[in-house]
Amino acid sequence: MRVLILGGDGFCGWPTALHLSARGCEIGIVDNLSRRDIDAELGVQSLTPIEPLGARIEAWREIGGETIDYFPLTLGRDYDELLALIGEWRPDAVVHFAEQRAAPYSMKSSKHKRYTVRNNVCATHDVLAAIVESERDVHLVHLGTMGVYGYGATAGAIPEGYLKVMIESDGVLVEREILHPVSPGSIYHLTKTQDQLLFQFYAKNDSLRITDLHQGIVWGCQTEETRADPRLVNRFDYDGDYGTVLNRFLIQAAVGHPLTIHGSGGQTRAFINIQDTVRCVALALSRPPQAGERVKILNQMTECWRVRDLGGMVARLTGAAVEFVANPRNEASENELAACNQTLIGLGLEPITLEAGLMTDIVEIARAHADRADLSKIPSAATWNAERAAVLAADSAEERLRAV
Amino acid sequence: MRVLILGGDGFCGWPTALHLSARGCEIGIVDNLSRRDIDAELGVQSLTPIEPLGARIEAWREIGGETIDYFPLTLGRDYDELLALIGEWRPDAVVHFAEQRAAPYSMKSSKHKRYTVRNNVCATHDVLAAIVESERDVHLVHLGTMGVYGYGATAGAIPEGYLKVMIESDGVLVEREILHPVSPGSIYHLTKTQDQLLFQFYAKNDSLRITDLHQGIVWGCQTEETRADPRLVNRFDYDGDYGTVLNRFLIQAAVGHPLTIHGSGGQTRAFINIQDTVRCVALALSRPPQAGERVKILNQMTECWRVRDLGGMVARLTGAAVEFVANPRNEASENELAACNQTLIGLGLEPITLEAGLMTDIVEIARAHADRADLSKIPSAATWNAERAAVLAADSAEERLRAV
Repeated sequence: MRVLILGGDGFCGWPTALHLSARGCEIGIVDNLSRRDIDAELGVQSLTPIEPLGARIEAWREIGGETIDYFPLTLGRDYDELLALIGEWRPDAVVHFAEQRAAPYSMKSSKHKRYTVRNNVCATHDVLAAIVESERDVHLVHLGTMGVYGYGATAGAIPEGYLKVMIESDGVLVEREILHPVSPGSIYHLTKTQDQLLFQFYAKNDSLRITDLHQGIVWGCQTEETRADPRLVNRFDYDGDYGTVLNRFLIQAAVGHPLTIHGSGGQTRAFINIQDTVRCVALALSRPPQAGERVKILNQMTECWRVRDLGGMVARLTGAAVEFVANPRNEASENELAACNQTLIGLGLEPITLEAGLMTDIVEIARAHADRADLSKIPSAATWNAERAAVLAADSAEERLRAV
Repeated sequence: MRVLILGGDGFCGWPTALHLSARGCEIGIVDNLSRRDIDAELGVQSLTPIEPLGARIEAWREIGGETIDYFPLTLGRDYDELLALIGEWRPDAVVHFAEQRAAPYSMKSSKHKRYTVRNNVCATHDVLAAIVESERDVHLVHLGTMGVYGYGATAGAIPEGYLKVMIESDGVLVEREILHPVSPGSIYHLTKTQDQLLFQFYAKNDSLRITDLHQGIVWGCQTEETRADPRLVNRFDYDGDYGTVLNRFLIQAAVGHPLTIHGSGGQTRAFINIQDTVRCVALALSRPPQAGERVKILNQMTECWRVRDLGGMVARLTGAAVEFVANPRNEASENELAACNQTLIGLGLEPITLEAGLMTDIVEIARAHADRADLSKIPSAATWNAERAAVLAADSAEERLRAV
């Protein structure tokens, strides 16, 4: 199978490229290296010392003998080049990771909000339009997020994309299955809800075959393939914008900093290990929808945790202290969450649990590279709205007062 | 009240500017004249001889003594200028018409699809981000469309924005009110569904006050104010891209061409007269939502008609013949439609009905300017997908054969 990986230099894209390459797929990577540019903008770097993309690809060829093609395009802008690439490289599937994927980054300023909307929506739409115009039969697999639903909007466990509802019509209850209602919590999440509408339209109007993977928060760093050589190491983000909650805890524990929990830590979220992410993408590629079928939506997550319980687990494993700080996000302070993931489990996914896998990551990544960490980058600098900004400013003024 | 009208040179924007100006509002128009550029691209012109925007504004000042400010910005691009404008001009309300609004134009090619997505989504998002960044309390009124719902997706009359549903959770039915599910029929309609998600987010996250007017298909051309002087005349589109169904029928009748009905003409659609459009916008401005309130969604339509019945009415009034042609659109050939419009009726709207108002338009516009019509521009050149393109190509080949 020939697979084009959009965003193939990123945190999920790179290990996916290697996982599929190791299993016999021919791989082409499309990436404009924007994630590395954002590192420079924020003045941070991956905790792990990642190689330039060319060196990564060369190392993979040396180790495994497999070549990976690289095409440096900017999606949402270089449409003609994308169309030509689909026509000439002839992918059977396209895996689309090429979006700005940090909620705090998307909320930093108007500039960051605008970049995230334009980049994500136009990238996704260009891919869809190019597949149609190419007249090739391509299966599109997209990385979405469990976060599109908000937390607490509907009742019961979150189903896989579609929700059965009853609607009253002339005194009779009629059953309908609808795209699950959304309530995104950031501009980043919002763009993923806009993507969903694009997919729904192109599946209906042009019979495109599309799978949308609604992923939980990814934790961990390495996979079987990225461990094969130090030059293949995956990126590990711990900063306030790109570091997901668990990876922040791990680096804080490794350097002896208290684990900082936003608000009461009562937020419940869905999680998945990076190794399971790449397995799930492979499973999704092996079971494409048929032409004319509706968008196939899978919940790509393996367990749900409350943030303060996660903090407690990491504290127990490492002896770290826990500190509660003001929440920069506009979100419910406590929520329940359950989600269905029977499709990927049914396809044979055997999840790596946090309790079983966490120590490996602490030792392998956080402790090994702790000397590269810049602790000043851990607090989130983005606030969600004017009210949250005022609360954080008051907190920080009080702290300065206490310090006097 | 100070009102900034985005897209104030367009078919709905211009008469709205005059209607509000005549009622004591101070008006600023933001427009990049893209609609006039598209006329040039398509090689068509308004049936009515519209003046340049500067001459329109000057004529209005001569007639009524009211000035209208004009700011030539491109929304979605000139963000800093928009932000400065909101800060300096200090609008109480912004009325947002600045989107590419023709479904066939949005489906002509990948280029047109991409333009519509980028233009509409980025314009709407820039307006929202700029209002937040300006820290001013601005009521945003947006022109949406009844077409976001598709036709036939849910049960009963379409409510105003929100739908009560019952969801089963642990064997119990729980009631929830959700944003009404969408099923857009073109890229243009799709962008309006993406706008809805933007509004939902900004109302929740930043307490913006937003009214979204889900408008039916607008018919007619002139309003009380545009009739006051020939230099104020509103545009009238009859071409295959921008001419809405009824306006196409009127010009076909005026020049003695058969009324062309797509497919069986069984499509039922919602309609509203342009005079009622401007009244509705004024009513919406008079009843803004409170800060913190959810997005206020109103159905801005006054009657529903089946397309073949409309054709029959115009034929009866004018003696025109009716011709059924292959449908370029990917849509249900027959559908029922009913929609609730109690909010605007409750605020005092007294609708102009098609049966009462149609002859005025036929005489005043279509017959008066029939000599300016280019009949070759009436057929829709855009097809919705590969299958529709094939059907239309076969039809046209058969026609050529018959002509031999």
